[in-house]
Amino acid sequence: MSLLVVGSVAFDSVKTPFGDVEDVLGGSALYFSTSASYFTDVSLVAVVGDDFPEEPVEFLKSRKVDVKGLHRAEGKTFRWKGEYGFDLNEAHTLDTQLNVFSDFKPELSDAQKDAKFIFLANIDPELQLEVLNQVRNPEFVACDTMNFWINGKPAELRRTLERVNMLVINESEARALAGESNIVKAAQAIRAMGPQYLVVKRGEYGALVFSDKETFFAPAYPLESVYDPTGAGDTFAGGLMGYIASRGRVDDETLRLGTVIGCVMASFDVEQFSFDALRDLKAAQILERFKRFHSLVNFETLTELPAR
Amino acid sequence: MSLLVVGSVAFDSVKTPFGDVEDVLGGSALYFSTSASYFTDVSLVAVVGDDFPEEPVEFLKSRKVDVKGLHRAEGKTFRWKGEYGFDLNEAHTLDTQLNVFSDFKPELSDAQKDAKFIFLANIDPELQLEVLNQVRNPEFVACDTMNFWINGKPAELRRTLERVNMLVINESEARALAGESNIVKAAQAIRAMGPQYLVVKRGEYGALVFSDKETFFAPAYPLESVYDPTGAGDTFAGGLMGYIASRGRVDDETLRLGTVIGCVMASFDVEQFSFDALRDLKAAQILERFKRFHSLVNFETLTELPAR
Repeated sequence: MSLLVVGSVAFDSVKTPFGDVEDVLGGSALYFSTSASYFTDVSLVAVVGDDFPEEPVEFLKSRKVDVKGLHRAEGKTFRWKGEYGFDLNEAHTLDTQLNVFSDFKPELSDAQKDAKFIFLANIDPELQLEVLNQVRNPEFVACDTMNFWINGKPAELRRTLERVNMLVINESEARALAGESNIVKAAQAIRAMGPQYLVVKRGEYGALVFSDKETFFAPAYPLESVYDPTGAGDTFAGGLMGYIASRGRVDDETLRLGTVIGCVMASFDVEQFSFDALRDLKAAQILERFKRFHSLVNFETLTELPAR
Repeated sequence: MSLLVVGSVAFDSVKTPFGDVEDVLGGSALYFSTSASYFTDVSLVAVVGDDFPEEPVEFLKSRKVDVKGLHRAEGKTFRWKGEYGFDLNEAHTLDTQLNVFSDFKPELSDAQKDAKFIFLANIDPELQLEVLNQVRNPEFVACDTMNFWINGKPAELRRTLERVNMLVINESEARALAGESNIVKAAQAIRAMGPQYLVVKRGEYGALVFSDKETFFAPAYPLESVYDPTGAGDTFAGGLMGYIASRGRVDDETLRLGTVIGCVMASFDVEQFSFDALRDLKAAQILERFKRFHSLVNFETLTELPAR
C-alpha cells in the first residue's frame, strides 16, 4: 500500500572528523523516500527552490517515488549546515536557512489525500496538522519531531501527537518531551499523549520500540566505516514505514522486522556522505546485512540454569 | 568447574539522583562472586580490614563461595565514594581510600593455583600479573581494567593483556586503550594486544562481544527503576564468567548465553543500592528475566524483500 511522506528536501553542508561536504543533497523527505522506495510505493510532499537540479528528481522517479508533490518555488532551497564530533551521535547545527521552506504550505493531491500510511517528518507541527487535516481516512500515521518544536510549539505538537499512531524520536528528545530522564517512564508519558507506539532512536546504540504489549530493541550494527550520520534517522524511518506499508498492517512481527529493516537501511546511509549509499542497493545486499543483524543479537532460549 | 576471582571488597558511599548510602558493602570481588555463585563454585582472593563485619562473609559462605582467600589485615577496609548524575552510565569518583588494599599481595592457596577459570577484576595490573604467575594451568583468563591503569601503568597492563583470553572493559576505556574512537577498529587494536575476546560494556546500552569469528550484541533491559549502577560491570562479569565456568568451555553459544546472563544479573543489581538485589535470587526469577531479554531482541529471519 502506498506511503505518503511530508518533509524537507535540502542542501546540506556537513563536517565530520572524516571529511566535509558542501551543499550535498539532503532533507528528511529525500532520505525517507529513497529508503522506503526499496519496500513500497512512496509519494512525497516537499518544496525546493529554483536552484534545485533535475538529477535527484529523475533519480527519485527511477526509484518509482511519486514526485508530483515536489513543489518548485521561487527562491533558494532549504539549507542546513552541521557538524559532528567523534561522538557521531549528536549533530551540532551551525546554520539553518529555511528559504522556500518558510512559506511552504503542503497541499495534497487528490490521490495523496487517500494515502493510508503517512510519515510526517520533522517539520513545524502546524504543517504536520495541516497535512493530517487533508488526509481522508489514514490507517497508520507516524511522525518525527525535535527539541526546536518541543520547546517552541509545545501546544501545537501536542495536537499532532493526539492524532498519530507512532512517534519516532531521538532519545534525548524523548526525555525532553516527557520531562523524565528514565526512558521507560518517559515512554509511558509520551504514549499517554496519543501515540500507541513510541520508537526511540539511539544513534549507534540502535532503537527501542515501546507499545502497550511489549518493548523491542533493535541494535545498530557496529561499523568500521561510519562517515556521516546525517539522514540516518529519516533513513531508519523510511525503512520502518516502508516495510509496514508493504505489509499493509501493523502487528508485532511487522513492527519488529520493520524496525530492524530501518536499522539496516540506516547502517548503509552512514557509510557515505549524503544519501549516496542508498542510491543503488540490491535486494541481496539488504538481505545480507539483515542476516548480519540477526546473527548480531540472536541467541537461544535457556530453559534451566546450571545445577549447583 | 571452579572460578577464581581476585579483586576488591570495599565499603562504598554512593550518591545517585534517587538517594544516597554511606559505607555499604561493595567492591569488584564481592559483586562478581555473588553474581557468579548462582552458576558455579567461586573462590575469592581479596583483603579487608579489621573493621569488616562477619555478616557478608557468612553470606558468601551461604552462597557456597570459598572465602578462605579473603585475608584480614590490620587497618581499615578499602573505601570508595562516588556520584552519578541522571546519566547513570558514568560514575564520578569523589574519594578513594586504598587502606589495607595498598599493601595487598595476593597469595593463592594450593587449590586456587589449580583454578581453570580466572577473573582478574579491576586492580593494579602488577597484582593481576602476580596472580597469573601463581596459577599453574589456567584454561580461560579474563580481566577488567580502567583509565587509571591505562594511563598510569600502560606497560604493566600490556603484559597482563598478553596473557589473558578476554578483556571486559567499559566502552570509553576501550577507546582510550586503543587510542581509537571507532569501536570496531578499537576492538581490532585491543585484540591484537593479546585477548582473543573483547567484551565492551556500554552501561544502559548493553554489551558488545568481539572475537575473530563474529560480533555479538546483548542489550541492557530498559528498566523503570534504576537506582544505583555501582557494581553492575562486576555483576555482569560474574554472570558471564560464572556461566562459562559452569559449562567448562568457551564456544560461540556459551559466550552468547553467558553475555546475556551477565546482562540479566546486572539488571537486577541496578534496581537496588549495594548488592542487596543479588542476595537472594531464585533460579525462576533469573530465567524469567532471561526470557524477557530474549523477547526484547528476538526477531524472525527474513528470506526475501517485499516484491516491488
